[in-house]
Amino acid sequence: MRKMKVAVIGCGTIASSQHIGAYARNEFAEIKYLVDVRQSHVEEMAKTYNVPFTETDFRKILLDEEVEAVSICTPNDTHAPIAIACLNAGKHVLCEKPAAINLEQAVEMKKAADRNNKILNIGMVNRYNTAVNRVKQMIDNGELGKIYHVNCSFRTHRAIPGLGGPFTTKAKSGGGVLIDRGVHFLDLIFYSLSQPNVLTVTGAVHSEMAKDMKQYTYLDMWAGPPRFDGTYDVEDYVTGMMRTSGPTISLNGAWAQNIGETAMFVEFLGDKAGIKLQYGGEDFKIYSAEKGALFETMPSFPAADMFFDEIDGFLRSAMENTKDRANIDHVILTSEVMESIYKSAELGKEVSW
Amino acid sequence: MRKMKVAVIGCGTIASSQHIGAYARNEFAEIKYLVDVRQSHVEEMAKTYNVPFTETDFRKILLDEEVEAVSICTPNDTHAPIAIACLNAGKHVLCEKPAAINLEQAVEMKKAADRNNKILNIGMVNRYNTAVNRVKQMIDNGELGKIYHVNCSFRTHRAIPGLGGPFTTKAKSGGGVLIDRGVHFLDLIFYSLSQPNVLTVTGAVHSEMAKDMKQYTYLDMWAGPPRFDGTYDVEDYVTGMMRTSGPTISLNGAWAQNIGETAMFVEFLGDKAGIKLQYGGEDFKIYSAEKGALFETMPSFPAADMFFDEIDGFLRSAMENTKDRANIDHVILTSEVMESIYKSAELGKEVSW
Amino acid sequence: MRKMKVAVIGCGTIASSQHIGAYARNEFAEIKYLVDVRQSHVEEMAKTYNVPFTETDFRKILLDEEVEAVSICTPNDTHAPIAIACLNAGKHVLCEKPAAINLEQAVEMKKAADRNNKILNIGMVNRYNTAVNRVKQMIDNGELGKIYHVNCSFRTHRAIPGLGGPFTTKAKSGGGVLIDRGVHFLDLIFYSLSQPNVLTVTGAVHSEMAKDMKQYTYLDMWAGPPRFDGTYDVEDYVTGMMRTSGPTISLNGAWAQNIGETAMFVEFLGDKAGIKLQYGGEDFKIYSAEKGALFETMPSFPAADMFFDEIDGFLRSAMENTKDRANIDHVILTSEVMESIYKSAELGKEVSW
Amino acid sequence: MRKMKVAVIGCGTIASSQHIGAYARNEFAEIKYLVDVRQSHVEEMAKTYNVPFTETDFRKILLDEEVEAVSICTPNDTHAPIAIACLNAGKHVLCEKPAAINLEQAVEMKKAADRNNKILNIGMVNRYNTAVNRVKQMIDNGELGKIYHVNCSFRTHRAIPGLGGPFTTKAKSGGGVLIDRGVHFLDLIFYSLSQPNVLTVTGAVHSEMAKDMKQYTYLDMWAGPPRFDGTYDVEDYVTGMMRTSGPTISLNGAWAQNIGETAMFVEFLGDKAGIKLQYGGEDFKIYSAEKGALFETMPSFPAADMFFDEIDGFLRSAMENTKDRANIDHVILTSEVMESIYKSAELGKEVSW
Repeated sequence: MRKMKVAVIGCGTIASSQHIGAYARNEFAEIKYLVDVRQSHVEEMAKTYNVPFTETDFRKILLDEEVEAVSICTPNDTHAPIAIACLNAGKHVLCEKPAAINLEQAVEMKKAADRNNKILNIGMVNRYNTAVNRVKQMIDNGELGKIYHVNCSFRTHRAIPGLGGPFTTKAKSGGGVLIDRGVHFLDLIFYSLSQPNVLTVTGAVHSEMAKDMKQYTYLDMWAGPPRFDGTYDVEDYVTGMMRTSGPTISLNGAWAQNIGETAMFVEFLGDKAGIKLQYGGEDFKIYSAEKGALFETMPSFPAADMFFDEIDGFLRSAMENTKDRANIDHVILTSEVMESIYKSAELGKEVSW
Repeated sequence: MRKMKVAVIGCGTIASSQHIGAYARNEFAEIKYLVDVRQSHVEEMAKTYNVPFTETDFRKILLDEEVEAVSICTPNDTHAPIAIACLNAGKHVLCEKPAAINLEQAVEMKKAADRNNKILNIGMVNRYNTAVNRVKQMIDNGELGKIYHVNCSFRTHRAIPGLGGPFTTKAKSGGGVLIDRGVHFLDLIFYSLSQPNVLTVTGAVHSEMAKDMKQYTYLDMWAGPPRFDGTYDVEDYVTGMMRTSGPTISLNGAWAQNIGETAMFVEFLGDKAGIKLQYGGEDFKIYSAEKGALFETMPSFPAADMFFDEIDGFLRSAMENTKDRANIDHVILTSEVMESIYKSAELGKEVSW
Repeated sequence: MRKMKVAVIGCGTIASSQHIGAYARNEFAEIKYLVDVRQSHVEEMAKTYNVPFTETDFRKILLDEEVEAVSICTPNDTHAPIAIACLNAGKHVLCEKPAAINLEQAVEMKKAADRNNKILNIGMVNRYNTAVNRVKQMIDNGELGKIYHVNCSFRTHRAIPGLGGPFTTKAKSGGGVLIDRGVHFLDLIFYSLSQPNVLTVTGAVHSEMAKDMKQYTYLDMWAGPPRFDGTYDVEDYVTGMMRTSGPTISLNGAWAQNIGETAMFVEFLGDKAGIKLQYGGEDFKIYSAEKGALFETMPSFPAADMFFDEIDGFLRSAMENTKDRANIDHVILTSEVMESIYKSAELGKEVSW
Repeated sequence: MRKMKVAVIGCGTIASSQHIGAYARNEFAEIKYLVDVRQSHVEEMAKTYNVPFTETDFRKILLDEEVEAVSICTPNDTHAPIAIACLNAGKHVLCEKPAAINLEQAVEMKKAADRNNKILNIGMVNRYNTAVNRVKQMIDNGELGKIYHVNCSFRTHRAIPGLGGPFTTKAKSGGGVLIDRGVHFLDLIFYSLSQPNVLTVTGAVHSEMAKDMKQYTYLDMWAGPPRFDGTYDVEDYVTGMMRTSGPTISLNGAWAQNIGETAMFVEFLGDKAGIKLQYGGEDFKIYSAEKGALFETMPSFPAADMFFDEIDGFLRSAMENTKDRANIDHVILTSEVMESIYKSAELGKEVSW
């Protein structure tokens, strides 16, 4: 069996915990390069995974024609330039989410993929979650009947990542809880609903919990510790409502808030049955009715190896040059909607499509 | 001490379970008339409460100058004509909620009160709930800091009242879950926030769960049983979002839905602390932070006698001819917002104020 | 169809809210007497239900041979003498729960029933609950496999009934939360398990929350208000463990406690599946496994008219003189177990059977 | 500052994830040896932590007089022989929990410590948990009043560790869920209560969920995968009740069960206030009453570095040769109680002390 030569660009947390291992275990892939600006870091990882070459500048690998596919795991603001350069150099690209820090860049990435006839997948890993796919299958089969509303919540008590760092610096990240976490929720909703047409989008954002960074109380911090001399100019709360050709959609998201509940779920309201899907889990609840009784059913499944499946899908997609579920063509709707939410928030009024 | 002579117009569930008893126990009131179209029913009640007179037509009591105040507990669609007639006849009026089946009628009622210099209170009974008032007090004291978002949910699994009857017939009720139940939630929010200016309102309504009335599965029914030859033309789901001069507000409400959770609450998100108030209860949760630790505190209070306090407040307001917290002047904002939600739902787009 | 002539002895809350109405609606019954020590109270009720005779002394009806069946709804401490007198007079008896204030009296009642060849049913109304019967059916069908443990909890935050009154006076009630509330839980467990043999019983009781009655904080009180000059000599907490020929059983019960959760449930742990039954409801959760996935299923049913069914069962049982599910023969096991728990608590050690 | 030379014996999960790092970060310690039967594994770890020596046989380090203290992180059945050998060789010992696979061995360990006048601490790491210590402090201060009952639950849906391996083989582990997980719960209870005298213990154990190992359904497995040719002869469910000189104690524990809830908590019921402590967390709920209102308060704290504190405590204890909170003298009560539960389960009756 043929093995594609692969480069992983950006060897931080997501690459080292997921991408590199997934390529290493895949029968279709052989990692030729690890690329990271931190030289000693990337050399150590190369040793662990028996990767022959390391680079500190991704442009070096553009010239190596053997490299057919790359994973981009760098900060959000570099997604577009690196992806476009790689596509222009004839590589297939799997780019971590979000596609880019704004819609304009995401569109440029899609154009580069189309122009070069290469695959551009975005790391919307929930499209490989077992529970999400079971839900989508039930919806496709009509088991929920007509879905008229979707309610989604991505709210946590205290979870601002890396306060003062790239996550909370708009120029680096493109935004806060919406682009960091909401992206997953919106994408799995549009995936499950098979991409309805969006008609109107209204939204508002708030940045309140760490206005004074030193006053922000938390128990632990992912991607921390805080950098009090850094920037905090992104939203920690977002609310919004959309009309589509299918259901209406309401959303509320919080990185941090003075409500001490974790509420991370998507509710699909159908006229025949409904589903409440806990985000990131392997189970969901189905609410139905039969013979005068009401039923609540919660199946739980073993966790899929989502990143393995995401990367396996990308490799197959690249080898056959056919677009699959994680292709930019399907994922870009999420970028469009997020752009509209930010725009509506800025204008203080609803945006029509 | 002087006792005002009072008439109760409409002696159905809410009058017999609350209003009549509350007047009977109040030192400032003496019920002179019970009025109801069902003659034997009203006579029986009059016996129980030692009320001297009964009438089947409310217009009879308009002529009795001794009657200074009336409670109106008739169906929603009769609130406006009866209230206006009573105000024009020089009576003070306490009218059950909602004020009327639409904004136009509510405005006419307010004008009649102003014109006749009489008190018109609306039965927004949550303004007398202990927990609500403690929350309002904390907000007024600045204990939550700046409130930037309010999220409200009035959703139940199966609770359509009297399927096919007046509740589900728009011409009688003015609407479904929004006007029946949302009215309480919106009113307590605006009360707690001391009436912010509304800037934009967007909303959508759905009527899906009892399109085919016989297919609607339920375990019990308030105001039931169903009348399958009746009408079901109101919403059973509503979603919406508002911008105000204070916080943004998001809402979701369901009389019935295929999500088997009861979610009846209002969340006030402040930059200093937050509150989650369970609707209709005597407790709420406060989320705060101090010295690097996070705190969740839930006080519970003995239930207030809310209807007694509502009616006592009305009687005092009438005697002194001063407007109190339940006056139409404060409550009409809720009618205005509900009108905007229905209008936005009809237009399929946001409404600006 | 023949109608049995019936007397209801004790016309307090449970008789007026349940028994009398259930007889009145039953085609096999005709209430001839209402008996209560409060003369005007019972006369008023007789008018409402068109009952021809009232008495203040139950002994009067013993002489009326037309009366074939009686319901006993008097305080716990009078159950035994009244029931035995009625059985000796040749009446069939339905006695409210608990059978008596101790085992000795319950045994005497059973002997009287046997001696006179009459039916003695105890008001274990959960034996007519839909959810309980579905659970029993699943157990009987082997759907749970081998049941090896049952855990039961009847704990509430603040629910001492009528502080200082008969409920909290041991001489009147026989005990506190165990005999008042635990009786239902134990009985439904033994009913569901088809009466296993008990081998050992250990238990402990505590009376701590209202030692100083005036210091007991509560938000409302059933059967209240408190009588501070009354008696509080019963347990407000009970814990225990049993071994049986079937599963082991653990129990914890609280009328009041400084844990603010309502925990009212029975868990049946089987090796094939398990059930968590919320007490008093119309639903339960089934936990099972299939094809590598785990399932949680919660069916909800319309509420049965449990008291109607209890009384209908009693009437049929009496007419045919055959023992049914609520017969003292099946229910006495619960009295035996409660006696053992109290005895073990007193001795400070386990009791073997 | 003096640094003690230390050896870590057994370099599996708990040593590599906790002990070794904690010693490495501690100013009073210098790791001289890592000991493990797997030679290449231990050499790799020694490189990572710059530890000068490795051994595959712990007896080698007994001869090195420079080594003053050891951590024992080997399988349960080797705790006693290794600890006793180390104590006899004049080393201070920190032994992972449980002390040993039965009481007899634990007593021998204690005797060896006493005889050699050396410190023997047991890794009861919850004694260094912030929430546990706050709870203990409140109890010590009398804030809960008289504690009359403690209810504890260590139940999970599906969490048998390493099915078929050492955890489920009695000869290696000494037992199942009680000795593996219950040990922590009992120890933190006795710690919080300052060691009451135990009077009676009754208990029962069940081994039902993996009788047929291949039929055991699970979603993931800690210390897995299953070894179907291994042994499963330990309990997966335990229930019990104790009387003490202080409160009564009830417990239920499950590694696996057909009840799909995670219930891991300890409830302390006091006559003044109560506490529900979620196991392993940084928060707890306090239930109290004041001025006619009820209060529920949940403080949350940043996680302590529990293993660092445990090892720091051990080092200080060893240097000063004074017994601290984790000394065998305080911890052995838990071994005694577990022995009684297993004995009671075997005899089918209560055990008196």
